[in-house]
Amino acid sequence: MNSNYIEILGFIAAILTTAAFLPQVYKTWKTKDVSGLSMPMLIIFFVGIVFWLIYGFYKESPSMIFANSITTITSFMLVYFKFKYEKR
Amino acid sequence: MNSNYIEILGFIAAILTTAAFLPQVYKTWKTKDVSGLSMPMLIIFFVGIVFWLIYGFYKESPSMIFANSITTITSFMLVYFKFKYEKR
Repeated sequence: MNSNYIEILGFIAAILTTAAFLPQVYKTWKTKDVSGLSMPMLIIFFVGIVFWLIYGFYKESPSMIFANSITTITSFMLVYFKFKYEKR
Repeated sequence: MNSNYIEILGFIAAILTTAAFLPQVYKTWKTKDVSGLSMPMLIIFFVGIVFWLIYGFYKESPSMIFANSITTITSFMLVYFKFKYEKR
């Protein structure tokens, strides 16, 4: 397949999975309810996304760099919210 | 960087993000509590993962094929649980 078409597939994937993650971030920001979120899982996810981002650079994949840049930020926000709003 | 090392990076990413998703699936399976899950978001996520899987095949990325094959199954399970356990 033409590489432009492949990149279109990738961007559709990027937009869908990034969009599916945003409502969680928005909900946590609004409600400050972090009880259902597990800090170890958030950190594992965040580190995983950073690895995908680095991998995306090496694979020269614009879709992966785009998606994982955004998700690096949004997943870091969840880690921050969990830290900030957790009942002590 | 040597392509083997790049693929190791990708596999670390694959294992971390896949592992971070599993507790959600397990929790939903055990509790049958799907109230916090949104069906449109689950479907958007599932379709996005299928697109990443197809993209991974075209990019000839073993890490992406591995991670997105597993997450296709686990995200489909969440769609199924939501459909099955949703209060009518």
